[in-house]
Amino acid sequence: MDQNYGSPEDRLIARYFRPLAKHPGAFGLGDDAAALTPPPGSDVVLTTDGVIAGVHFFADDAPENIGRKALRINLSDLAAKGASPLGFLMAVALPSGFEETWLAAFAAGIGADAERYACPLLGGDTDRTPGPASVSITAFGAVPHGKMVLRSTAKAGDRVVVTGKIGDAALGFKLRRDRSVAEAWRLSAPQSEYLVGRYLLPEPRNALAAAVLAHASAAMDVSDGLAGDLSKLCRASGVAADIDVSRVPLSEAARAAITADPNLLETVLTGGDDYEIVLAVAPQKADAFLAAAHAAGVTAVDIGQLTLGEGARFVHNGNELSFARASFSHF
Amino acid sequence: MDQNYGSPEDRLIARYFRPLAKHPGAFGLGDDAAALTPPPGSDVVLTTDGVIAGVHFFADDAPENIGRKALRINLSDLAAKGASPLGFLMAVALPSGFEETWLAAFAAGIGADAERYACPLLGGDTDRTPGPASVSITAFGAVPHGKMVLRSTAKAGDRVVVTGKIGDAALGFKLRRDRSVAEAWRLSAPQSEYLVGRYLLPEPRNALAAAVLAHASAAMDVSDGLAGDLSKLCRASGVAADIDVSRVPLSEAARAAITADPNLLETVLTGGDDYEIVLAVAPQKADAFLAAAHAAGVTAVDIGQLTLGEGARFVHNGNELSFARASFSHF
Repeated sequence: MDQNYGSPEDRLIARYFRPLAKHPGAFGLGDDAAALTPPPGSDVVLTTDGVIAGVHFFADDAPENIGRKALRINLSDLAAKGASPLGFLMAVALPSGFEETWLAAFAAGIGADAERYACPLLGGDTDRTPGPASVSITAFGAVPHGKMVLRSTAKAGDRVVVTGKIGDAALGFKLRRDRSVAEAWRLSAPQSEYLVGRYLLPEPRNALAAAVLAHASAAMDVSDGLAGDLSKLCRASGVAADIDVSRVPLSEAARAAITADPNLLETVLTGGDDYEIVLAVAPQKADAFLAAAHAAGVTAVDIGQLTLGEGARFVHNGNELSFARASFSHF
Repeated sequence: MDQNYGSPEDRLIARYFRPLAKHPGAFGLGDDAAALTPPPGSDVVLTTDGVIAGVHFFADDAPENIGRKALRINLSDLAAKGASPLGFLMAVALPSGFEETWLAAFAAGIGADAERYACPLLGGDTDRTPGPASVSITAFGAVPHGKMVLRSTAKAGDRVVVTGKIGDAALGFKLRRDRSVAEAWRLSAPQSEYLVGRYLLPEPRNALAAAVLAHASAAMDVSDGLAGDLSKLCRASGVAADIDVSRVPLSEAARAAITADPNLLETVLTGGDDYEIVLAVAPQKADAFLAAAHAAGVTAVDIGQLTLGEGARFVHNGNELSFARASFSHF
């Protein structure tokens, strides 16, 4: 990190990223490192997630959304762990021939979200790459010491709760790749736009972090598909899950698509990029959590329960669904 | 981060990276995030730096050294800020067709250094990329609250001290790119190997972090060339520097190369990848710092002083040197 106007690299950073670095511990991006003073008695929650052009986003996506999505997927991890954002570091690799206007829009997008989620830029690293553009973010949050909400602490008997709507982004990805599927799915233009928007720009549930911290016995963010991610939570906690598919929250657009093509139910339940939270909540705390979510303006729905055993069963019209591939993997 | 054996990606991470994640806050790489409990009364120092194949390393470099170098360049920033390592996160992007043996050696190398520098793996992110392999590391250290050693706090009158040897890595890079230059530089095979080794595997000065914290009025790591980096420190602090080039510490191999080709003096003073520390030390503290460095087994040399004014002047045989390019920039 190095922004003393000495080189072209320094000038780009000074112009586009320094205005985002308002936190005193960022030292105006002018030092080798940043300094963070955690709230007394807290643990620092650390998460890192990146996006690569051609893998996690389309190279011609709007640059303001690319930066925002990169930050939001990390904010989603903080929310699921019950952590309040403290700030983030950003490593950007840019291909030769990138446009400065691209960088300006990218920085404006991520800067707007840094404000919105009270998660300031603390520092970073900017490199040229012979490969595709990539953005790797490390985000920091605070929880009371020892209280980070884990995947591994769910109990048989807990209710399974999920936030927002599931599957929009997986459908949106297919639409972003090939707009013509909208016709086969009999979607209106607004439905189609809604789904693509949900893929391009997730809405991390940081407004729920305090409620997750207070009420969840376990939680994780849903980034690689509900079925696969819930299976991971079950495996980590040594429990099974019984999910009533009819209660999984779907948008009106997703319902329309599934009506046109019932095979899309599997896409919705196993596709990635939801960035919602799936939680285990003790039955006696479930109402309090749902009320807190409602108060925070986020929908949250009880979709089933955890039981003794292993595996996550998704039951639809009395039949257990089996999936070709339960979640997304890069390898 | 997701390692519950569910996917091929999970299995690779479980096999090669989970054994490195011994810190309790890493949760065996089995959760969305890591948790770090900073020492009471401390600030967390944050730094991120990455390496990309074809930019920061050669694609056919030994994989064990690639991981180690990626970690060490971050450890170097912590050392320069006076911070004790707490741990690190790692984002790895692998091209399709990478060999699992490559990953095994990479992980073994970085694991050995995590032990050596007491800087455990806390978490990470593994992706496939259509581009070159890259490794982005975010490292965390601790300093007493408010005590991170900055670039901007040097004073006129301070001595300028530098650790280790300068310029070896810049020469080593040229040799790594084209071994035949060893002949023109009249280097012996061991001299040539020494210089290449210094490029491939820097030696961060973490053994000096406590002495930097105790004695330096300002410091930074020398990663983009001594001349350029010292100029940045001067600019950040609002001072000038007078450096006696004859006192800049050079290895016997670097001296031999400069004797054969005097133009290499500029390479040595402006080339990157030293990963030494340049410090400003108040005159009355200089002896104590040099003694502490000696006790830690690291050479450190007084190469000049800071004065009122601006700019870093490198004086050689009574003449001020001027450089074509004072430091490395990616753009």
